Amino acid sequence: MLNKPFVIQDIEPSVEGGKYPIKREVGDILTVRATVFRDGHDITKAVLKYKEKYAAASWAYTEMAAVNPGLDLWQGSFILEKNARYLYTIEAYTDVFSSWLKDTLKKYEAGQDVRSELAEGEILIANTAGHISTEEEKRYFTDVMEIIKKKKIARDKLKIMSDPLLMDIVKRYAVHSDLTVYEPYLEVIVDRERARYAAWYEFFPRSAGTVAGRSATFKECAKRLPAIKEMGFDVVYLPPIHPIGKTKRKGPNNSLIAGPEDPGSPYAIGNADGGHYSIEPGLGTMKDFEKFEKACRALDMEIALDFAINCSPDHPYVKEHPDWFFKRPDGSIKYAENPPKKYEDIYPLNFYAPNGAWKELWEEMRKIIAFWIEKGVRIFRVDNPHTKPIPFWQWLITELQKDHPDVIFLSEAFTRPPVMRILAAAGFTQSYTYFTWRNFKGEIIDYFTELTQSNAKEYMRGNLFANTPDILPQILQIGGRAAFKMRFVLAATLSSVYGIYSGFELCEGSAVEGKEEYLNSEKYEFKVWDWDRPGNIIEFITLINQIRRENPALHYYKNLRFFRSDNENILFYGKVSPDKKNIILVLVNLDPFQSHNSMVYIPLNELGIEHDETYELQNLINGERKLCKGEEFFVTLNPDWEPAFIFRLDKWSYKEEKFDYFGM
Amino acid sequence: MLNKPFVIQDIEPSVEGGKYPIKREVGDILTVRATVFRDGHDITKAVLKYKEKYAAASWAYTEMAAVNPGLDLWQGSFILEKNARYLYTIEAYTDVFSSWLKDTLKKYEAGQDVRSELAEGEILIANTAGHISTEEEKRYFTDVMEIIKKKKIARDKLKIMSDPLLMDIVKRYAVHSDLTVYEPYLEVIVDRERARYAAWYEFFPRSAGTVAGRSATFKECAKRLPAIKEMGFDVVYLPPIHPIGKTKRKGPNNSLIAGPEDPGSPYAIGNADGGHYSIEPGLGTMKDFEKFEKACRALDMEIALDFAINCSPDHPYVKEHPDWFFKRPDGSIKYAENPPKKYEDIYPLNFYAPNGAWKELWEEMRKIIAFWIEKGVRIFRVDNPHTKPIPFWQWLITELQKDHPDVIFLSEAFTRPPVMRILAAAGFTQSYTYFTWRNFKGEIIDYFTELTQSNAKEYMRGNLFANTPDILPQILQIGGRAAFKMRFVLAATLSSVYGIYSGFELCEGSAVEGKEEYLNSEKYEFKVWDWDRPGNIIEFITLINQIRRENPALHYYKNLRFFRSDNENILFYGKVSPDKKNIILVLVNLDPFQSHNSMVYIPLNELGIEHDETYELQNLINGERKLCKGEEFFVTLNPDWEPAFIFRLDKWSYKEEKFDYFGM
Repeated sequence: MLNKPFVIQDIEPSVEGGKYPIKREVGDILTVRATVFRDGHDITKAVLKYKEKYAAASWAYTEMAAVNPGLDLWQGSFILEKNARYLYTIEAYTDVFSSWLKDTLKKYEAGQDVRSELAEGEILIANTAGHISTEEEKRYFTDVMEIIKKKKIARDKLKIMSDPLLMDIVKRYAVHSDLTVYEPYLEVIVDRERARYAAWYEFFPRSAGTVAGRSATFKECAKRLPAIKEMGFDVVYLPPIHPIGKTKRKGPNNSLIAGPEDPGSPYAIGNADGGHYSIEPGLGTMKDFEKFEKACRALDMEIALDFAINCSPDHPYVKEHPDWFFKRPDGSIKYAENPPKKYEDIYPLNFYAPNGAWKELWEEMRKIIAFWIEKGVRIFRVDNPHTKPIPFWQWLITELQKDHPDVIFLSEAFTRPPVMRILAAAGFTQSYTYFTWRNFKGEIIDYFTELTQSNAKEYMRGNLFANTPDILPQILQIGGRAAFKMRFVLAATLSSVYGIYSGFELCEGSAVEGKEEYLNSEKYEFKVWDWDRPGNIIEFITLINQIRRENPALHYYKNLRFFRSDNENILFYGKVSPDKKNIILVLVNLDPFQSHNSMVYIPLNELGIEHDETYELQNLINGERKLCKGEEFFVTLNPDWEPAFIFRLDKWSYKEEKFDYFGM
Repeated sequence: MLNKPFVIQDIEPSVEGGKYPIKREVGDILTVRATVFRDGHDITKAVLKYKEKYAAASWAYTEMAAVNPGLDLWQGSFILEKNARYLYTIEAYTDVFSSWLKDTLKKYEAGQDVRSELAEGEILIANTAGHISTEEEKRYFTDVMEIIKKKKIARDKLKIMSDPLLMDIVKRYAVHSDLTVYEPYLEVIVDRERARYAAWYEFFPRSAGTVAGRSATFKECAKRLPAIKEMGFDVVYLPPIHPIGKTKRKGPNNSLIAGPEDPGSPYAIGNADGGHYSIEPGLGTMKDFEKFEKACRALDMEIALDFAINCSPDHPYVKEHPDWFFKRPDGSIKYAENPPKKYEDIYPLNFYAPNGAWKELWEEMRKIIAFWIEKGVRIFRVDNPHTKPIPFWQWLITELQKDHPDVIFLSEAFTRPPVMRILAAAGFTQSYTYFTWRNFKGEIIDYFTELTQSNAKEYMRGNLFANTPDILPQILQIGGRAAFKMRFVLAATLSSVYGIYSGFELCEGSAVEGKEEYLNSEKYEFKVWDWDRPGNIIEFITLINQIRRENPALHYYKNLRFFRSDNENILFYGKVSPDKKNIILVLVNLDPFQSHNSMVYIPLNELGIEHDETYELQNLINGERKLCKGEEFFVTLNPDWEPAFIFRLDKWSYKEEKFDYFGM
C-alpha cells in the first residue's frame, strides 16, 4: 500500500521511459511535457526539477504550466547552460494553501459563513512558521499573524490572508506532504555545438604527400591542412594511425598476399612497434602527431581519430593478454571469420572473455581513449561498434564523458535499424546513416523524416557521409560531376553534420567492377594525389560550406521539413533558424543525367507569409534574386549547369508603422 | 559494469513499459512481439516465458520466431487458459551449439580444415552431459559421444554431431550463460468472457413494483427478472441497496428539503439501520437479497452492485471511525462541497486520512466488497472512482482479484481522458465512456477508433451505456422512438458490452428543462412503471440482443472497423469473428428525423472477397436477403421505419473442388 495521489506519466522528451538519455546541445532550451494529475479537485502544482549529473550541484526548480488542462498536460523549460550531463524529473504536489484560498473565496463571495474556513487558513499559515529561514521573513510573518488574529471581520481577515507577499512566503515554506517524484530520473547529454554542426573531411594521412611509394608523414599532412580549412571543413578525420600488422598483411585491392613494400590496411592494428597507444613509424613520432594536432587547432579545426578495436596477430595484446582473445581447443588464438570467409590478419577481442578477463579488457579500452584525450583529441569515430556489446559502449562513453563532456563519439554501424538506434541511445554522439543508399525522392523523404521527426531525433544525430573508403555509391560511379555536386548539397543541407572522404572533391569515381568499392583503394596502398586535378568541385564545396556557415538555419538538425514539388526528380526541403529569421529552401534535381522542371510550393503558412505578401528569394549559389508572391514557384534544374539551388527567403519587414517618426 | 549481450525492447502488448497490466479474456491467444538482438553474428534464441501470477506454478516457455529479421522483430504466443492474472516476459540467449554448427558446416562445405572446429563441438556437446536428467537420454548421449570419438573423418563426425536427436538433447540441457531476461515482468489480467461480452440492464429496485408511494421489495423485483431475461440481458445492475441517510435527505428533483415520506437518494448511504453491509429495510432483508441473487443466477443473469463510497451523516462510520473523515478546526466533520455548492447529505471519506487512518479505511473498503462477494455478487459498478486515489483502486482490485479473479469492476468516471485511462490501467475491468455525447459520424469514428484501435484497447473496455439515471442524452429528449432505436443499435454493436437504464425500453425522455437530467428522477422518489407502455421498443431490444447472441462477431470488442459511406448521416461499420466465419456489417442513420440514402462500400479486400465474387447480405432486422457483387452498395435508411440495418455477410463457400468425389 502506497498512498501518493499523483500520476505523472508520458514525459517527453524521453527514450524508453528514461532507460537512455536524450541529447541536446549547449544553449538549448529543454522543454519538458508530461501528463500530471491527482484525484479530486485540489490545485495541483507541477515542478520541473534538474541538476548537473556529475557536479555537486543542488537541484534547480522551475514551475510548470498547465498548457492543456483538459488533458492534464503540463509544460516547463530550462536552459542547458553547460556541456555536461543533466538529470531532470517532475515533482507534483497539492498546493494546499491555494486550494484553501480558492474554495474559501468562493464561499465568501456566495455569502456563506466562512469562520471555520478562516480558522483552517490560520492553521495552514501558522504551520509554515517553523520552516521560515530568514529573520526578515520571520518578523514579517509574526506581524501579519498578529494582525490576522486581531481582525474580527471575515472580509478583513481574508484580505490579509490573500496578501501576495504572505502567500509567497507560505507557499515557499509549506511542507508538501503528498509530494510525488517521477522516477527513474531522466537524463540529457548536453553536447557542445560541434556535435550537431560540423563538416568532416576524412583522409588517409599516408596518402597526403607528394612522394610515391612511401608513407606521407604528419609533417606532410600538416601542409594539406590550409586547403582543407579553405574548403570550409571543421573536423579532420584520420583512419587508424597506429603500427600495422605484418602477419597475413593484405596487399593491394584487399589481396591475400602483400608485397614487401605494401603498407597493409591500417585497420589491422599492432606490431612490434606497438598497438593502440602508438604511432605508425611511417607517419612520424608521437611528437609529430602532437604538432599536427596543434596545427589543426590553430586553424580552428580538430582531429577525429578512428577507434578500431581490431588487433593484428602481431599486436602486443596477443602476448600480454591472450585471455582477451577467442581461443581454439588447442589454445591457439582465433582469427576473425565470417564463415567461410577468413580474415587472418585480424584477431578479434572477446568482450565477454571469461573469468572476469572482460572487465580488464573493457578498462583497457577506456584507457586507450583516455590516452588520446590526453593528446588533445576530442572526437572519436568508432569502427563497427555493433560487433561489440551495447552495455560496453554505454559504460565506456558514460565513464569518459564524466570527466570529458566535450568528447564526441561517432558510431560507424551500417546494420539493422534497431541496432543503429540502440547504439545512439547507449550514448554515441553521432551516427552514420543509410544516406549513401537513399537516392530517390520518396526514400529520402521517408528516411530523413524518420531521422529528424520521429522519437529518434531525441538521441540520434545522423552524420551524413557522402562517401567513405568502404562505400563509393553507385550514383557517384555513374553520375559524374553533377552527381558529386548533387550528393554534396544533400549531405551538407539535409543534416547539419556531414562528411566526405578525400577524393570526393576530385570526383574520384573508379570502382571495383560490380561493387561499391574504390578501385586500388588507399586502404591497402600508398597513394599520391593531384589535389587540383581538373574537373574537381573544390570551388563548389567551398561555396556550399560558406553558405552553411552564413546561414544559421543550416546549423540545426531537427528543423528539416520537406515541401511539395510536382516532379518526382525534384526534391524540395527547407530549414528555419530557431529565431525564425533565417529561412533556407533547397531544391535538388536527383537525376544527374537530365534537366527537370517542376512547380514547387513555398509553404507560406509554415513560414508565416501572407498569401498576398511579397517576399524575396535569393539563390545563394549564383546570387540571383527574385521577388515572389503566392505559393507557386516554377524551377528548372539542369544538372550540367547546377543540380541544386539553395534559396534564402527574406521577408519585407520594414513597414511605415515601424518608422521612427511615424505617428509623432 | 554489467555484461549481458541482449537488447530486448518495445514489447507489445504492454502498458507504460509494464507499469500496468494488459487485459484479455479466458481462451484468448496472447501474441507477444518484441525487438530482440545482440551484437555480432551468433544465433539468437528468444523465448516467451509465462506463468500464473498467484499460483505456485512454474514458468512455462514457448519459442519465439523471428518474424522480421531485418528489424530484429520476434513473436510468440500462448493460450490464456484460466481466469487469473499471468506474468509474461521474454528471455534471450545465444544458441551456442547452433551457431557453432552453422559456421562449421559453412567451413566444411567450403573445403576448409575443420578439425579444430570439431574438437570445439565435442567440448560443447560434452559440456551438457552433466545436466542431462533422464537415464535414457544419458545412455543415448554416452553412446553417441563414443561414436563421435571413434569417427576419424570430418564428414562422419559432422553427420553424427548434427543428428536432430542429439541436437535436441544438447539444446535442451545447454547452460545459457548469457541469458538475458526482460524486466519488469509484464502482467495480463485474464478476465472471464462476461467482462467483454454482456448486456447490462439497470433499474432502481424500489421502483420495480406496482404499489405507488412505497418501496418495492426484492420479492417484487424478482418478478421483473423474467421480462429482463426475455429482453436478452445478462447483468442486472442495481443502484445502492443500503439504508439511506435521514439527515439533510434530498427531496424530489434533488430539492434540499425532503418530506417525511420521501425515500431520499440511495447514494447517501447509511443510517441507524446500518451502512454498506446492510440492506435498506424497504427492500427487504439480507435473506430477501440472497434469494433475489439466486433468482438472477437461475436465469443465467447476475447482479452488479453499486459501490458508492458516500456516507450520509447518519452512517455508522461517523461515530465509529470519525478519523476517516475530513474535520473542521472545531473537530466537527465536513460535508461534501464543490464551493459554493454544498452536499450536506454526504460526508466524504478521507482516503489520505492522517496517522495511518487511511490504511484502516482502505482495508475496510476491501472488506465491504469481500462481504458482497460472499453473498454471491461478482460484478461491482464503482461510483465516481476518480475522486479517490488511483493507488487505492490498484491495491483494492488486485487484492480482491487474487482470490476472486472472476470479479468485474466497472469504473463510472466521466472525467478527463487521462484520468479515465489511468483508472482502467490501474485495474478496472470496464469503463463508462463518452458514448452519450458522441452523436455524429466524425466524432463517433474518431472516438471508437481511439478506444478500440489505440493502445487503450490493451487495458480499457468501454461499456456503452445509452442512458443512465444521471444522463438523459439530448438526442433521446428530442429524437423520439427512432433515436432510442438508433442509439440502442449503436450501443449494442459498437461495443460487445453495453447497458441501458430502465425506462429506455419505454422511450422515456422527459427531462428537466435545459438539462440532461430526468424529470422527477427515480433517484429521489418511489416510482411505479407500466412496463408495457405503448410505443415501447421491447421487441426491438429483444431482437437486437438475439442478433448479438447469434453472431460471435458481436461478442468481441477490438474487432470494430469503420467503412466508407458517402453520406454524413450514414455510419457504416462492421465486425468479424476471430475465426473469420461470422461477418456483421452495421448501417445506422444518425439523423432521427430524416430518411437518408447513401452509396456505401463493402470492404471486399479486408473481408477476403474477390471483386467478381458473389456474396449474400442478410438484413438480420427484417430478414431480407440479397445477392451482391462488387464493393458498391446503395442503402436507404428511413428512421420512421428502421434507423439501422444489421447485415450478416455470407460467402458462397462451396466449390466443386471441395466436393467429396471431385477428382476421384
